[in-house]
Order: sequence, then C-alpha cells, then structure tokens
Amino acid sequence: MREHRKKISDSTINRLSKYFRTLERFINQQIETVSSDEIAEIDGVTSAQVRKDLSFFGTFGKRGLGYNTEKLKSNIGAILGLNKKWNVAVIGIGNIGTALIDYEEFKKQGFLIKLLLDNDNRKIGKKIKGLEIKDSSKAIKYIRDAKIQIAIIAVPSKFAQGVANTLTDAGIEAILNFAPLRIKVPPNVMVKNENMSIELEALSYFLTNR
Amino acid sequence: MREHRKKISDSTINRLSKYFRTLERFINQQIETVSSDEIAEIDGVTSAQVRKDLSFFGTFGKRGLGYNTEKLKSNIGAILGLNKKWNVAVIGIGNIGTALIDYEEFKKQGFLIKLLLDNDNRKIGKKIKGLEIKDSSKAIKYIRDAKIQIAIIAVPSKFAQGVANTLTDAGIEAILNFAPLRIKVPPNVMVKNENMSIELEALSYFLTNR
Repeated sequence: MREHRKKISDSTINRLSKYFRTLERFINQQIETVSSDEIAEIDGVTSAQVRKDLSFFGTFGKRGLGYNTEKLKSNIGAILGLNKKWNVAVIGIGNIGTALIDYEEFKKQGFLIKLLLDNDNRKIGKKIKGLEIKDSSKAIKYIRDAKIQIAIIAVPSKFAQGVANTLTDAGIEAILNFAPLRIKVPPNVMVKNENMSIELEALSYFLTNR
Repeated sequence: MREHRKKISDSTINRLSKYFRTLERFINQQIETVSSDEIAEIDGVTSAQVRKDLSFFGTFGKRGLGYNTEKLKSNIGAILGLNKKWNVAVIGIGNIGTALIDYEEFKKQGFLIKLLLDNDNRKIGKKIKGLEIKDSSKAIKYIRDAKIQIAIIAVPSKFAQGVANTLTDAGIEAILNFAPLRIKVPPNVMVKNENMSIELEALSYFLTNR
C-alpha cells in the first residue's frame, strides 16, 4: 500500500470531491463565505469531519470567519489535481460507454475523453461527439499516440481483465472499472471500481432503518 | 437531520457496500473465513476502520478467528436492506437510463426496475428488456400502480427538479439523482446524488500526489 493512501483515506478523498461540488454550488449562488457547518449540512457529514478532512492539507479558513468559497474550491481542486487536464480513454462503447462520452461533468472537471476503443467491427469507425471509435486490437498504439493517462473500462465482465492487462502493458497507471468484478493489476497501477449500486444501497439502508 | 444519520455516517454505509462486495468475491473463491486485514487490503481502508464500521452494528467476528464470510455478508446485507426486494423506477430513458436498465448488479442486489418513464413521444410505448416506456406526464398514477419505492432521475439537469417534485407528490421517499445538480425535496425524502466523476477525481488525486 502506498504511503499517501495510509495518510489520507479513500473516504476523505471522496468527501473532498463532494465539498468541491458543494462549493461550486455556493459560488453559483454568489455566496462568498461558508462555514464548515454549512458545507456539512449539504454533504450529510458533521462539521468536525469537514474541518478534519481539510486539516490534512493545511489551514484554509479563519477561525470564526468561515471559508472563502472561491479560494477553498480552488485549493481542493488543486489537491485533487482538477486544475490539470487529463487525457482519458473509454474502452467499450456500449450503453455505459456512450453515457460517459455524453457526461458533461467530466469535461468540466478536466477529464477529456480523447480515445474510444471497441472490438466490435460494427462500431469501429463510427463517430461519437466527433471522436472515431478505434479498433481495440491496436489499443497499445492508440493509447500511446493519444497520451492517455486514465482509462475507463466499460466492457462486459468477461473481457475486463484482458482489457486491464492491455492497458497496463500500454503504460496506463490509473483505471476506472465499471465491470462488476475486481481486476488484478501491477502494484504501480491504481484501480477504482465504479459501482452504481452503492448509492442505491444507501437508499435501501435509509428506507430500512428510518 | 435524521437521528440515524447522526449515528452512522454516509461514508460508513458506503464502506459497508464495499465490504459486502468484497465478501461476495471471497465467497465466490470458496473462502470461508477472512480477517479485517484481508477485507481492508482489498477496500483500501485500514483494518481498524473495518472493525469500527462493523462494531456500530454488533459483534460479528470472533477475536483471532476472523469473520465467517457467508455470515458477515448476510449480516451486512440485512443492515443495508439487501435481503429485501425494492421496486425501482427509472425516469429518463437516455444513455444513462438505458445503461441502468442493463446493469445486472441492480437486480442481483434486490433492486428491481419495474417502471420506465420518459416524456419523449418517440420513446413512449417502446420496450426495453420487456418493459414498456410509459408517458411521464402520467407519472403519479404509474408510480402508485407499480408500488415504486425508489426512483432514479436520469433526465437532463433542467428537468430534474420538476421530476423530483412529481416523485415526491407521488409519495416517493428515496431518490437517486444522476443529474449534476442538487435537487430540493421535503425533509422526509432522501436524495443520493450519483456523481460519476468522483472516482475519476480519486484517480486524479492519485496521479497528482504519488
């Protein structure tokens, strides 16, 4: 396990993403200053948690004065690397893959989809949002040419491990996996699993325990 | 804020979902006993965190002997309400909506998609996986007839608040929102926001801070 993962938990990083979005919303409403209480209220955590999460990365607010929304958003963005642009490939252009290409949030946060790959001859050569679907049998070449840094696996489960192997052979070190199984990768590669049931399960918990 | 939300944080509930999946994987590999260390390793948290999360809900393992995988999975499933069946509606049958209908994980965890709604005349009446897309202008009737408990909003942002209002009018108390904005609902209604950028942001954090 990597040093930074010991210091800062995945949950903290996920909460920073949520705070980032909450701050965006305050900024859209022309609100210049917020308290940790106000951030906490919206994100369903305690204000102590907000302060603790932020304290890992330095001192942001002034005691009693709250946080400047623009400044805190920009600071959290820098921690998360959202002040950069990332070249992203989507592998598997089915329903989920297509939905991701359409997903405006990615571009807004600096995730630029630059490469689409599929193994289906009926899809290869077609264009989505101006980007041509390329033949995944030549994945390594395309990934290197497009300087891809992050790859999204959106293929059926049975193909996911094979795709992951190709991606790591191509030098990819960050993978978002939509297939509902764990894929094995070398220790220098980070895989995050997107599981769309997780929030439904939180709703199921709510309905069961209220 | 509700009492149970003060006691058990959203992050804890999300981690329980991850443990549930990890246990499923161990069970698929015919592994009968695991330690909190083994669960932690896979989920990228500390073993202390695993033990703390589980301790909120009682005593599951035996000291030094680890957890029985089947039993712990079944216990976590019961906490999350995954031992029940939930009737789910999808509102907005675009790319994301269609991807959700195809998503095998939902059914496996007891989330049964029973109703599809859209406002597009070209879609209404068409069938996906044997289920007919219904006219969202009659949403309240369809939601009540199908005894829907959880609704998924997969419409464009500008329609999301209107859809949420209709859903709450129809008595829905649990909403999963894919639109990238916060929707306002009465205090008895729980909304979870699905943001597909969050895990990409965790990857961006990894690439930036390693």
